[in-house]
Amino acid sequence: MSLPKRIVIHELGPREGMQIEKNPVSTAEKIRLIDLLSECHFPEIEVVSFVNPKWVPQMADAEQVVAGFKRAPGTKYTSVYLNTQGMNRAVATKKLDVEGSLSVTASETFSKKNTNRTIEETFAETEKRVAAFREVGVPATEVSVMAAFGCNYEGDIDPKHVIGLIDRLMGIARANDLNIGLIQLADTMGWANPMAIRRMVGMVRERWPDKRINLHLHDTRGLGLSNALAAMEMGVDDFDSAVAGLGGCPYAGFKDAPGNIATEDLVHMCNELGIETGVDLERLLDVAREAEKIVGHPLPGKVMRGGHLASYRKRAAEQRQ
Amino acid sequence: MSLPKRIVIHELGPREGMQIEKNPVSTAEKIRLIDLLSECHFPEIEVVSFVNPKWVPQMADAEQVVAGFKRAPGTKYTSVYLNTQGMNRAVATKKLDVEGSLSVTASETFSKKNTNRTIEETFAETEKRVAAFREVGVPATEVSVMAAFGCNYEGDIDPKHVIGLIDRLMGIARANDLNIGLIQLADTMGWANPMAIRRMVGMVRERWPDKRINLHLHDTRGLGLSNALAAMEMGVDDFDSAVAGLGGCPYAGFKDAPGNIATEDLVHMCNELGIETGVDLERLLDVAREAEKIVGHPLPGKVMRGGHLASYRKRAAEQRQ
Repeated sequence: MSLPKRIVIHELGPREGMQIEKNPVSTAEKIRLIDLLSECHFPEIEVVSFVNPKWVPQMADAEQVVAGFKRAPGTKYTSVYLNTQGMNRAVATKKLDVEGSLSVTASETFSKKNTNRTIEETFAETEKRVAAFREVGVPATEVSVMAAFGCNYEGDIDPKHVIGLIDRLMGIARANDLNIGLIQLADTMGWANPMAIRRMVGMVRERWPDKRINLHLHDTRGLGLSNALAAMEMGVDDFDSAVAGLGGCPYAGFKDAPGNIATEDLVHMCNELGIETGVDLERLLDVAREAEKIVGHPLPGKVMRGGHLASYRKRAAEQRQ
Repeated sequence: MSLPKRIVIHELGPREGMQIEKNPVSTAEKIRLIDLLSECHFPEIEVVSFVNPKWVPQMADAEQVVAGFKRAPGTKYTSVYLNTQGMNRAVATKKLDVEGSLSVTASETFSKKNTNRTIEETFAETEKRVAAFREVGVPATEVSVMAAFGCNYEGDIDPKHVIGLIDRLMGIARANDLNIGLIQLADTMGWANPMAIRRMVGMVRERWPDKRINLHLHDTRGLGLSNALAAMEMGVDDFDSAVAGLGGCPYAGFKDAPGNIATEDLVHMCNELGIETGVDLERLLDVAREAEKIVGHPLPGKVMRGGHLASYRKRAAEQRQ
């Protein structure tokens, strides 16, 4: 088993989770969740999205949330935005690490439903967005393909189609002198499986051997960690995840909003496999339990219920003495 | 990725699930669950355990459950028992496929807590049990090690210790002319990880190359499917699982009773990887949803919420026309 020595985990819980919760979560509780996560030593926490409150009322308080949390040294605090207006809101906070991403959805239908743009319109918008990045001085270092493995509306996605989309985004980046370091593949609707991951990662790796690959995995059908492991075995060392599996409540009928892989379960897997994450699992498990209280319903993370093996090991060692 | 063409799945939901539920499940509902599972074409369904109703009141109606369900052709209906008395109850039903297993627990503490016997006492009991198998004409074809990867009381379990235990059980089998075909490794408390699975399976395979290996995996810390996949990559083709992840309710604080891997999630993974199971996933997903109603609380299975990819594919294909 050839695995990376260390992986980077991007914690998305505050953004992915809070934008999907049906019951309102107070601004203070959102801030509390971010501050708790800051104690776990993540390289990045995605804290809010700047989107139209008409469509995502849960994020209407994005500015207040950003104003309220406390930055910890060593952590980047990022946000999601879908257009120039959103980017400008992020920049205006003067507190976030605003980064640019060239992003497209591999499924035409989902692109229209999720962003209200066709794939071609997204490419046109991307050209405009790149100009805005330059104007405001936002560094764009990432290209991203959503629904890269399959789509509930369009079925399986052909990996060659995904490669073609990345190629076009790379072309735009090259034409604009952007220094892209990372290619993100998002399994937005949980269609991936370990074999599909290997095939896709292999194709991206072959075409762009010098780029880092990030996987954004949803655990819709229980294969999230298996997919992450398959990617790690291909040398992938950059993952998104959300504490407690936030990002959708599988127990409330959010059929199209499955949660991300649970950060603490990913960290547990890494710990057991000898892969460093830099994340404090003991603290993170406490945060996962707090996250359940904050949203007011059970979340899918497992280790917070099953228990931290390190603590069992410690107790067992004490009893042997 | 080298994977088996086909795996055998032993469905344990009725037994693993019903013995752990806090709220009483009626005999009629237990029978209904078994009958629903019978429509999914499992090679084996474990239906009840014959244990002391003083300790497991949920199984006090084992005889009535057995009397009530309808056998389907092609499926074996088995049970669990811990002593000769239990075995005799199983035989007396005249309806079950009564099989013998030589079983030991790798952790001394858990052995005492779970079976009220030390490991040495278990070996002594096994000698007696083998005599009872012969007397009643029960075929014993399996050896089994529980808590083979780790224990909440004793910590990590040394694989060499497990090999030693299997060796002793094999010795008893040989001395009694038993034809053991299968070695079961049970991760009773969810301590395994994909690397530990590979190591353990490799050691067993090396020592007993002609025996089939079965894995009984609990999903306590979210690694169940990753562990199953790691085993499949080693050629393991025999697994236990429980519909909907029955066998423990992670949302009711059963800290020491985590559920098995969810059968429908395992079948989904196999379907996506091109591994045959013979199980009808569409029907099984309906049964998983019924299982939640029967126990009256959410169960951890994912695909029953995320949705069957085959149905999304079908819909997408129809819309393309």
